[in-house]
Parts: sequence; C-alpha cells; structure tokens
Amino acid sequence: MSCDYLSRANKGISKLQPYQAGKPIEELERELGIKDIIKLASNENPLGFPASAKQAITKHLDELTFYPDANGFSLKKAISEKFKVKQEQITLGNGSNDLIELIARTFVHDEDEVIFAQYAFIVYPLVTQALNAKAVVVPAKNWGHDLPAMLAAITDKTKLVVVANPNNPTGTFLESAELEQFIKQVPENVLVVLDEAYTEFTPVSRRAPSLQWVDKYPNLIVCRTFSKAYGLAGLRIGYAVSSPEIMGILNRVRQPFNCNSLALVAAEAVLADDAYLAKAYENNLAGLKLITEFCEQEKLPYIPSMGNFITIDFGKPAQPIYQQLLQKGVIVRPIAGYGMPNHLRISIGLPEQNQRLINGLKEILN
Amino acid sequence: MSCDYLSRANKGISKLQPYQAGKPIEELERELGIKDIIKLASNENPLGFPASAKQAITKHLDELTFYPDANGFSLKKAISEKFKVKQEQITLGNGSNDLIELIARTFVHDEDEVIFAQYAFIVYPLVTQALNAKAVVVPAKNWGHDLPAMLAAITDKTKLVVVANPNNPTGTFLESAELEQFIKQVPENVLVVLDEAYTEFTPVSRRAPSLQWVDKYPNLIVCRTFSKAYGLAGLRIGYAVSSPEIMGILNRVRQPFNCNSLALVAAEAVLADDAYLAKAYENNLAGLKLITEFCEQEKLPYIPSMGNFITIDFGKPAQPIYQQLLQKGVIVRPIAGYGMPNHLRISIGLPEQNQRLINGLKEILN
Repeated sequence: MSCDYLSRANKGISKLQPYQAGKPIEELERELGIKDIIKLASNENPLGFPASAKQAITKHLDELTFYPDANGFSLKKAISEKFKVKQEQITLGNGSNDLIELIARTFVHDEDEVIFAQYAFIVYPLVTQALNAKAVVVPAKNWGHDLPAMLAAITDKTKLVVVANPNNPTGTFLESAELEQFIKQVPENVLVVLDEAYTEFTPVSRRAPSLQWVDKYPNLIVCRTFSKAYGLAGLRIGYAVSSPEIMGILNRVRQPFNCNSLALVAAEAVLADDAYLAKAYENNLAGLKLITEFCEQEKLPYIPSMGNFITIDFGKPAQPIYQQLLQKGVIVRPIAGYGMPNHLRISIGLPEQNQRLINGLKEILN
Repeated sequence: MSCDYLSRANKGISKLQPYQAGKPIEELERELGIKDIIKLASNENPLGFPASAKQAITKHLDELTFYPDANGFSLKKAISEKFKVKQEQITLGNGSNDLIELIARTFVHDEDEVIFAQYAFIVYPLVTQALNAKAVVVPAKNWGHDLPAMLAAITDKTKLVVVANPNNPTGTFLESAELEQFIKQVPENVLVVLDEAYTEFTPVSRRAPSLQWVDKYPNLIVCRTFSKAYGLAGLRIGYAVSSPEIMGILNRVRQPFNCNSLALVAAEAVLADDAYLAKAYENNLAGLKLITEFCEQEKLPYIPSMGNFITIDFGKPAQPIYQQLLQKGVIVRPIAGYGMPNHLRISIGLPEQNQRLINGLKEILN
C-alpha cells in the first residue's frame, strides 16, 4: 500500500503544470545532431556576457567559499545611487521570478484574488495556482492590458494586481500617464506589482518614472531584472523597489542567501556599464526594425513590440513552423500555452542571427 | 490614512523575525577599522574555493547571457552516477535552504504540524512560521534529537518531520541504525526530511546509506548542500533525493531557474574533486581535535561534534566573549537565538586560524 503524495500536497498544486523553459542549445544539439544553433527563444541578450561583469566575477572567485552578503549591501548601494531610491526600499531576488513569487507568497493566501491580464507572463498564473488563490484573468485589449477592466475587476478579495510593462509575450506597452492614472485608482490595500523586466528596451522619453512613484503610492512594488538588457540571465538577479514597510515584510520571508555572490558583483558592475546597455538598446531597435519590415513585406501580422522580442501571427497553427525552424538550427518560442497557438515569439538577436531567422522563415513560408 | 501592510500579509508572517546571518568580514572591517579578520562563524570551508570549480566557472563565463538549464541535466547526471540514484529522484535547489523551504511550501499549510528538535537549524522554525503552520519542537536529549519522542509527537496533523544529521548548531550525530529504525516507524503519509548538510564531515564508516533508503521509504527526502564540505557557499547549490513521485511534485512548485549556471557547473566539477573533499575532511578532523583538546585543558564544556564546527559552553553569557573575540578580529557565532546564550558556535578553520582562536580565547578567559 502506498500513499498518494500529491493528495498530501497543498491544494492548488495538483492542478499545477511546471513552467516549460526554452529548449537549451545543447539539448537541441543532442537531439538533432546539428551544430551552429541560435537561440531566439528566451529573450536573452545576444551581445554576450558583458566584459565588465566578467571582470568583476574574476576578481571575486576566491571568496566563493563564503556565504553571500545576505543584505546585498554593495549592490543595493549601487541601485540606490543610480535610481535615486533608498536602500531600505530595495529587495534583491534570485531573478525577478523569485521576487514575484516572494511577493505572492507573502501576501496571497487561499481564495485571495490575483488580477492580471490575459496573455501576461505565465509565472503569474503559476504562482497564483501554487498558492491555491484565484487568478482573475482580465481579457486583453489589442493583446495588452485593459487597465479600466482590471480596475473594475478589483474586489474585497483582491490582494495583488500584476501589470507587466512592456508585457511578455506580446510586447505591448502602457504609456506613463495611463499607467499612473490606473495605479492612482487602485485601493491602497491592494498591492500593484509592476513588472518592468523589459523596461530598458523602451525609449527613455516614454518610460514611466515608476521608481519615484513608489513614494507616492505605498501599494506599488516595481520589479526589474538583470536577465534581459543587462545580460545576466545565467546568474539570476533582480530587484524590487517598494516602500520600506513592504520591503521589511518581504525581508522576513526572503531566504537570507537567495542571491549568489557572483550575481551580486556582476550586477553591480553592469549597472555602471552604460556602454553595454546602450549597445543592447541600439541592437534591439535595429533588429526589431529589420524583422518588422520583413513582416510587412510578407504581410505577416505581428504585435508591435516594445520588448526585445516580437510576436508574429502566422494565421495557422505555428507549431510546424517552429519545428521547421528547429531543423534549420533556429530556436524560437511557441506560445500555445498562452492561448496563442498561431503565434511564435521571436527574441531579437544579432544582425546576422536576425537575418538567418528571416531567411529561414522565407524558405518555410514560400 | 495609510494601510497596515503587515496586516495584509499572510498569517504567521507578523510573528516572523528575519534570519540573522553571520557578520560579513567587510562589515566588521568597516565597523572596527581593523584588517586581517578571520570568520569562523558560518561553517564555511576554510580551504578556499576549489581550483576545479574555478576552472569550470572560467570556462563557462561566456554563456551567462543564457538562462540556466532549468532541468540541471548535467549536474543531475553527475549526482546520479556518483551516488547511484536516478536522475528523476533529484531536485536541485538554490542551496539546501531553498529545498527545505520548497518542501515545506509544497506540503505544509495552515495548522499542519512540522516536527523538529529543540536546537535544530533555525530555518526550520522560520519556514514553518512563514507558512502559519504549527512548529512542534521536541525537547533535545543531550543537545541532539530524541527520536522516540519525535516519533511520539506525530499526530494526524503532522506533515513533516525534519531530522538534521549531524545537527547544526550542536554537532550531534545519529547512528545509522537508530536513524533507520526511526524512519521505518514514521507513518508513510508523513514526510521525513533528513537534512545532511554536514554529512561529508562524518566518517564514512558511520555514515547512513540514506540515499539508498529512499527506495525503501517513499516518504523520505534527503537534502544535501555544496555549501559546506564542497566549498561553494557563495554560489548557492544543493540537492534533494526523494522518490520520483515526490520529485515530480516539488518540480511543479520549484522556480524553473532557481539554480544559477555557475553553481551548476561548479558543483559538477567539485563533485569529481575527491582530493578537495578529502582535504576538507582531514583539515576538519585535525582542527576539531585541536580545539577539543584546548577545551579539555581549559575545562570548558563543549558538545562533541561531527560537523565542521564546535559549540562551547562558557558557563556564563557568551555575548561578551563574542565581542572580545571580534575585537581580536575573530568572528564566531553567538547562538542565544537558539536558546543557548552561554554557548558560542565556532567553525573549524585552517590550523593557524584555529590557533589564533585558541590564543584569543586564552587571553580572554585568563
């Protein structure tokens, strides 16, 4: 006689499907027996690991027998100075996934409601489901957030509203004014998580002063990551900015050594590396332009994107196209799991990678 | 009018105190304005970062713009081969703290009971409290686990029993036979978490075949870490071995990228570095001997330890002794938070570090 351990697990978990990560290059190499594969599947930075971060890591290798600084003093100081926020407002995470989960675990319980948009990042429903809370999915408007509808969805049971700007996997963007108008109207006892994982790819002139809003709106938590524009996805590091009160609450629940030592020093180095960030921005802009022009030529509908990826509508199930691209050594991301079976999400690569994708698509489509 | 966000947080969190980490060396340097500080406070490996791990890291720096392999294929393969367990039995964690928390979050809910011993690792009560579950703390026997009493404490509400072997911060050890006898008697629907963070410091001849027990006892989860004997504390990596069924359940809740890429490759390298592990073991044995002999001479009671630390009873509040050692540039760990205000926990260092500690203590005590 054996025990059914899933029935012993917390409610919600039995309905939970694990996150499906993008296929690693080595795995595809093993499977297909091909080399020279490019991965445009996980919105990673195509520029390669920043030299500044590499240098920082190399200097700190001998300290790795020691635990990391549990308070991340040095990185928090750098973030504080660069973005004009107080150190007591900053929570560091093992990637922003860790922060989103930490916020949810701290504030969300059985039957509480978490509001997010249709086509929003899949980690939001996963985290909500793991906590046995109720996901209130607000239908998208033009693939993006319908903020008035999200506001209207707030009830007495709402604990969190999550807004991604730009949104992944659709790349849609909310202008600063409409976003602030929304935050202003959310009741103070409902937390607003503003996920800005892709904010560094947006034009500075249109970027919301979200970190400064935190002083005005005590229920606002802004999450950012070093995994995208800063190029540190493999190291796992992100940060949240909130009121010191909320930071203090999150800090009670946070694992003391959630951030590893190399991520801490690498993030600090790349935060000062304006040249890398500028290059990432420019490369992305040029790549987005190239691929959108291709889509226009081919009359392929796409969702205008402010992220480092573009989501294309192939007008028919996209899985075969994904498979054919794989055979050509190009990994992109199917998003049927998001209810978008006809779309593929394609991360912007280096110029030659973008061209290879375009050539591949041309061959497949014609 | 402002909102009290702590009252909006999940029950249990309002009573939660954050974990107090050992003082980082840089912090003490800043505070005291002294150099040449040694840290014997966090049970870290004094041998320095393994050259094998350093080499592995250096080879992989260019891949860090990519997300880690969410399945940790290569490290799981190495663990599987070394310890004769199946890959489907392995869950990787961001340190074993991450695994203990993951197990608790997956299986423990409001009012469930979690059993552990008095003087057990403080992460167990913290995690239990964060989940608003009931900590059932079983009084220690000679500073260690009273297994019959822990067995007797099991009720219908018990979800987890956590056993640390050796135990931190007391260093007490359970022999294989009594441990298996205990596990055999725990009802199958109650999970046993066997925390073996310090197992590599115990003599092989007395070490329990715990990873093989997992096949016999489907409710057993063994947690281990690369932070101690393997010297990778700063990188954050640990592993749990369980039935494939339990691994599958944990994997639903686990953050997909909880382990960073460098930790994955460093752990794989050091797992094959038998020389480093042997040296860590020998250095520890010699240091433990030196310090216990000193205690005997000085008639200082201590708890016989199987870990890489020793806990000494000063017969009076130990905080002033801790402070005086700090002034001499030696950081050790006060454990008043464990209800042991007269004790200090001292990690075993290199021979010259142990001698410096002994000299310091002699000056302070005489």
